[in-house]
Amino acid sequence: MNKHLQLYGQSLSLLTDLYQLTMAYGYWKSGTAEKEAVFNLFFRKNPFGGGYTVAAGLEQAIDFIENFRFSEEDTAYLRTLTGSDGQPLFEAAFLDYLQELRFTGEVDAIPEGTVVFPQEPLLRVRGPILQCQILETPLLNLINFQSLIATKAARIKQVTKGEPVLEFGLRRAQGMDGGVTASRAAYIGGADATSNVLAGRLFGIPVKGTHAHSWVMSFDSEEEAFETYAEVLPNNCIFLVDTFDTLEGVKKAIETGKKLEAKGYKLGGIRLDSGDLAYFSIEARKLLDAAGFKDAAIVASNDLDENIIQSLKDQGATINVWGVGTKLVTAYDQPALGGVYKLAAMRNDKDDEWEYKIKLSEQTIKISTPGIQQVRRYRNANGFIADMIYNTEGFQKKEEEIMIDPMDYTKRRKLDNATPHEDLLVPVFREGKLVYNLPEIQDVKKRVEDQLSGFHESIRRFVNPHLYPVGLEKGLYDFKTDLILKLRKFNGK
Amino acid sequence: MNKHLQLYGQSLSLLTDLYQLTMAYGYWKSGTAEKEAVFNLFFRKNPFGGGYTVAAGLEQAIDFIENFRFSEEDTAYLRTLTGSDGQPLFEAAFLDYLQELRFTGEVDAIPEGTVVFPQEPLLRVRGPILQCQILETPLLNLINFQSLIATKAARIKQVTKGEPVLEFGLRRAQGMDGGVTASRAAYIGGADATSNVLAGRLFGIPVKGTHAHSWVMSFDSEEEAFETYAEVLPNNCIFLVDTFDTLEGVKKAIETGKKLEAKGYKLGGIRLDSGDLAYFSIEARKLLDAAGFKDAAIVASNDLDENIIQSLKDQGATINVWGVGTKLVTAYDQPALGGVYKLAAMRNDKDDEWEYKIKLSEQTIKISTPGIQQVRRYRNANGFIADMIYNTEGFQKKEEEIMIDPMDYTKRRKLDNATPHEDLLVPVFREGKLVYNLPEIQDVKKRVEDQLSGFHESIRRFVNPHLYPVGLEKGLYDFKTDLILKLRKFNGK
Repeated sequence: MNKHLQLYGQSLSLLTDLYQLTMAYGYWKSGTAEKEAVFNLFFRKNPFGGGYTVAAGLEQAIDFIENFRFSEEDTAYLRTLTGSDGQPLFEAAFLDYLQELRFTGEVDAIPEGTVVFPQEPLLRVRGPILQCQILETPLLNLINFQSLIATKAARIKQVTKGEPVLEFGLRRAQGMDGGVTASRAAYIGGADATSNVLAGRLFGIPVKGTHAHSWVMSFDSEEEAFETYAEVLPNNCIFLVDTFDTLEGVKKAIETGKKLEAKGYKLGGIRLDSGDLAYFSIEARKLLDAAGFKDAAIVASNDLDENIIQSLKDQGATINVWGVGTKLVTAYDQPALGGVYKLAAMRNDKDDEWEYKIKLSEQTIKISTPGIQQVRRYRNANGFIADMIYNTEGFQKKEEEIMIDPMDYTKRRKLDNATPHEDLLVPVFREGKLVYNLPEIQDVKKRVEDQLSGFHESIRRFVNPHLYPVGLEKGLYDFKTDLILKLRKFNGK
Repeated sequence: MNKHLQLYGQSLSLLTDLYQLTMAYGYWKSGTAEKEAVFNLFFRKNPFGGGYTVAAGLEQAIDFIENFRFSEEDTAYLRTLTGSDGQPLFEAAFLDYLQELRFTGEVDAIPEGTVVFPQEPLLRVRGPILQCQILETPLLNLINFQSLIATKAARIKQVTKGEPVLEFGLRRAQGMDGGVTASRAAYIGGADATSNVLAGRLFGIPVKGTHAHSWVMSFDSEEEAFETYAEVLPNNCIFLVDTFDTLEGVKKAIETGKKLEAKGYKLGGIRLDSGDLAYFSIEARKLLDAAGFKDAAIVASNDLDENIIQSLKDQGATINVWGVGTKLVTAYDQPALGGVYKLAAMRNDKDDEWEYKIKLSEQTIKISTPGIQQVRRYRNANGFIADMIYNTEGFQKKEEEIMIDPMDYTKRRKLDNATPHEDLLVPVFREGKLVYNLPEIQDVKKRVEDQLSGFHESIRRFVNPHLYPVGLEKGLYDFKTDLILKLRKFNGK
């Protein structure tokens, strides 16, 4: 095993920010480590200027929590850390405590593949504050990235209108795992296969690939390269035609295709990787059709994303398989989702009342919402109509269900329990034990399709998408407002 | 160990594109697997519109190559892959061959921390073509990402003019490893410390961190939060002051600071994480200075990058420690470096002549350069003056050293061996064995500083940086030109 990853596997629980551990030490030392806390993980804006986000990464988050423990090597490392006076940061008894630590709390989450919106808790973690705190960084890392990539993939699949999307991004991905988990999230969101063999093996994703320019260059001629490939892999023939001269390359692929046919095999197609993809695909299609290869695919790649694909389609490009790499796996135009993890309630003990928590900000959008939150999604015969965030413990929901836009007090919607609805967060951990059956990746992928088809298509528009209504239940809204006013010293005014 | 990473560690050699394996199969099956090949890894444009790039990632690339082997589980997985006719892609004997495969070739590379430029081979891999081919994807993945982040960090450090940069990006990084290797590369490039504890442990990087908003929110008041923290961690006190009201927060930090002083400790400083960082830093500085805390640091964070830092400095912000997260670890404005790996020469056997290889393209910049390349960096008393790429085997360098800009035949420069110079690529693997002494990370970091100070400052300008001269040695230029004309059927015309 690789040195780097070997260390990795042993000490993954250190995958957190140091301040989580200094705060953990603070809780432990001041006797508040066991106070029960609730944190919500949510984001504030859909990525890419879009109207929706696809939740992903829960499986890896679960894996992380299940295996959450500090090894002796971890605590030995922590023992070496010092403060500004050169003295150890942590006392030994705390490090012993860390070594015994396991997650004993609760997690509720929105299943992977669900379409979600700003302000909705994708994950709610409840338990001793010390534990919840340390988990903040890895949970954000895992959920932010995969949700970002799954959303990007959904947008790309949206413009190909069902035509296959192949994800090719590993070589430009952000690190090994940036590649491997991007392949997973891309598949969930809409890609049909990946070139990444490790992701194929780890996650059961279909893998695809034929040959590169170097294959062609390694022979004396393009003909010889195609012929040799066809002899060796007759059941996997998509020829890359642009190593020297693209349309000449297409003609050579056709010649090889005829020989393949004579042997009872099929020419899978050709691949274009440079030049004017609209022009070359149109010309290549003519050549292929004229030679009787009407079923041969035209695969294209070269820095594609949803906008370039749309533009190629508008230009009449005859590409019908889309190879997408860098711009998908790095989410090139917005390479991070700004998910946050905010303390929302605390109490000393199971028998106490909850104390609800918010973080103020000059920017209204950055004020967090208190409560042990759940998201209720309502639907009518045409599909989903609104999501309401409500508090599930302590102060009550109003009887009449009214939801209020957290950004605009006057935007309201009346709902009622008779409207069909579903609560999105489901139990994942209870008393530190996994109580959730992880779905197969194919089912997660299917969920994305089902979910997206349940929303009005206007939320999928790229420019000025419709804002799907998400509001706070009136009881929660009023409670939050009172809390803000109190903190701003306008109590009751 | 985590399931995900456990599988990972076992089967890292599958971290490649499927087409590398189908090509490998093609080479093996057609009897060309052992032909000797030379591939160069290079990029075509400096990232971020800048004038330089910092090479990084070699240590991880070496680790990957040293541990390159397919496990039984890997080949069992490959056995399940099928082609368009449902038949296996690979025959069993090939999978047996893969399982015995080890890297037996040569690698030469430019050491990490070296400042490099477009067209220069950062890595040159030479050996049986089958082996070189499979390594393409992981080598690109590892070198592209770390070089990108090291460069970003160098740019950020450049604008802070020596003031400390803390890297905080893990929660928004692209996957776990996207975070861990970003922390490494950021440290090499210019960051002074990271919040990422795992990166700290794995690579010996200083780790820093104090507390978050949730610490403050978990107490009944900000005073209590600061006081408690100061009691527990008196040697690590930088108070986050913007949970409720920023300047009120500063005043409370000062009160706590006075108590710390009375006990013989120091107030490390305050941290601003939202709002108008220029305004608040100026006001906070006044308050701190008035209270006698002239040495207390003002740390700021909130989506900072080199441009925002420059702007804050232009506005007179009194921030003196810079917390940089998302925009550094994802290289937000250009999240991928477009490194490529191109076949440059081949021969059947050690005793044969080399056949030099290029890939044509309609775009001149995309035509690869043939040869077993080395980069010679010349300097005069003022610093580095030019880099010349030359061929080291087969056709000879001209006696008179002239280098020609590969993009403009008329741009030339005369050099000679009497000018002090250094060849940048050094031996890393010979006959599959590591022959390179990996430097300590602190020395790599130091190399970046030394290198950058060796170039004229105009290459570090953000807008329209000076283009440092990089050319092909005239013998190589002429050879490449002949090869292009021959492939374009203008042989001798």
